[in-house]
Amino acid sequence: MDDLYPTRGDYALEIERADPIVQEAIRGNPGAELPAKLERYAKDGFLFLPELFPAAETESLLAEAERLRAESLASPTAEIIREGGDGDVRSIFAIHRTSKTYAEITRDPRLLDLVTTILGDDVYVHQSRINYKPAFCGREFFWHSDFETWHAEDGMPRMRAVSVSISLTPSYATNGPLMLIPGSQDTFVSCVGETPEDHYKKSLVKQVYGTPDIECITKMAIRRGIKSPTGGAGSVVLFDCNTMHGSNGNITPFPRTNLFIVYNAVSNQLVKPFAANKPRPEFIAAREHIEILPKRKS
Amino acid sequence: MDDLYPTRGDYALEIERADPIVQEAIRGNPGAELPAKLERYAKDGFLFLPELFPAAETESLLAEAERLRAESLASPTAEIIREGGDGDVRSIFAIHRTSKTYAEITRDPRLLDLVTTILGDDVYVHQSRINYKPAFCGREFFWHSDFETWHAEDGMPRMRAVSVSISLTPSYATNGPLMLIPGSQDTFVSCVGETPEDHYKKSLVKQVYGTPDIECITKMAIRRGIKSPTGGAGSVVLFDCNTMHGSNGNITPFPRTNLFIVYNAVSNQLVKPFAANKPRPEFIAAREHIEILPKRKS
Repeated sequence: MDDLYPTRGDYALEIERADPIVQEAIRGNPGAELPAKLERYAKDGFLFLPELFPAAETESLLAEAERLRAESLASPTAEIIREGGDGDVRSIFAIHRTSKTYAEITRDPRLLDLVTTILGDDVYVHQSRINYKPAFCGREFFWHSDFETWHAEDGMPRMRAVSVSISLTPSYATNGPLMLIPGSQDTFVSCVGETPEDHYKKSLVKQVYGTPDIECITKMAIRRGIKSPTGGAGSVVLFDCNTMHGSNGNITPFPRTNLFIVYNAVSNQLVKPFAANKPRPEFIAAREHIEILPKRKS
Repeated sequence: MDDLYPTRGDYALEIERADPIVQEAIRGNPGAELPAKLERYAKDGFLFLPELFPAAETESLLAEAERLRAESLASPTAEIIREGGDGDVRSIFAIHRTSKTYAEITRDPRLLDLVTTILGDDVYVHQSRINYKPAFCGREFFWHSDFETWHAEDGMPRMRAVSVSISLTPSYATNGPLMLIPGSQDTFVSCVGETPEDHYKKSLVKQVYGTPDIECITKMAIRRGIKSPTGGAGSVVLFDCNTMHGSNGNITPFPRTNLFIVYNAVSNQLVKPFAANKPRPEFIAAREHIEILPKRKS
């Protein structure tokens, strides 16, 4: 298969995106709610949906996150990523396979209708995780395009995936909220350097390889600015797989916990990694355990 | 001398502040500009003055900061605090004694008029520094009351000092701006644990001792909220020596450099440290090299 997005070579490349951001022509009356949302998504590379999930629902999603965290400390598995190996729980992966509550939320029409319209295809869950950013000592996530990693290390061929981040706690400007560079989805910024063996064991704690060139990020941020949607628990950010994003640490007493679901177009299933010797494990990148979630009927 | 604010003992204490925040009765027509500012300062423990210094002036202050940083790398002295001992320059101290530009700014009436009115006394510079928060890898400063340290380690008797932070670069919500807890100046939160020998050599890089109880911070932040003034270069935050403050790290391409000047009332000069064996060096806490800056004539 042709590699449209070469990466992990000797120097940084900027490549124009070859895939549409919203797959289907944006139809309907201009000014109508759905076309307006899709247009914003196509332009910015993300869409903020304040308090999409009501409080009662969000509370039960947060309770489930706390239950999984407690359970994970009692019986550690590979799906659990801890700070420095045995510190705080930073992330738990594949939660749509281990939790009935989260399996249901991945099939929720409030998410699926938008996602399948954007991708113009049936979809499946490529990855799911809970990210815990604890109070007082939450660590930063450096700038990255998820697609760069999924392409290099998982073999995702094209930019036909959408990430959904559901805030289970309020996002304030001060507690390390998600930051995105609007318009960055239009350019693929390659990363320099060969992928080390079993890279994911370290990169999920602190990214060292697979980070984009800081001159490219600077140029993008000066030209496009940085956006950081804030809002109550239950708010959702949908963002394109190539949108450059990251987050600062958190010294406030307010933790930031979010549920992260990645939908990939069925026509974009994984092949051999484009820049790694072997694919990452199933719990990080679904290859075999795939449940098809059908496209919204229009 | 009586110790009104005991700290570094075996458990955390919360002590009601014994000193007024604004020393003189706030006089004048209600609604007039100066009384309104003083009232806000008394209530919140800080005052934000957006773009107090015009662009041309701020640029020359920033150029001086860059000059000192370059010079400090060429000939290191004790006044220079670097990340991890030999990394990026984090702070340079006593800059009002080594730089003519900064000496002048400490005598600027735009600062002194407000500060001497708040303190109701002649003042002197207790401490001055430049803080560099570099782009991409700027580190956090954990929550603290400056007074707790100055009392414990420098022998500052009472809460009669004002800190002035002048932003030499824009402060965005995203680049690790100063965060303050309004109203926190009303309560002294002691810190637990004996002060180690030569503690400042480590604490200026990363605070470990002398950090307040996280339950106290949580209670304060829930009750009072967290404020984080943002604005263009040349903006100023004046804050009380006991106002709880800190800042997150910075992964953005936008560095945050600020000039920090602490004014102490002449009647509040340093005595023996209240909770350390020996005082910190002169460049951190002025004891001998004192230039009296006279009170504003009203």
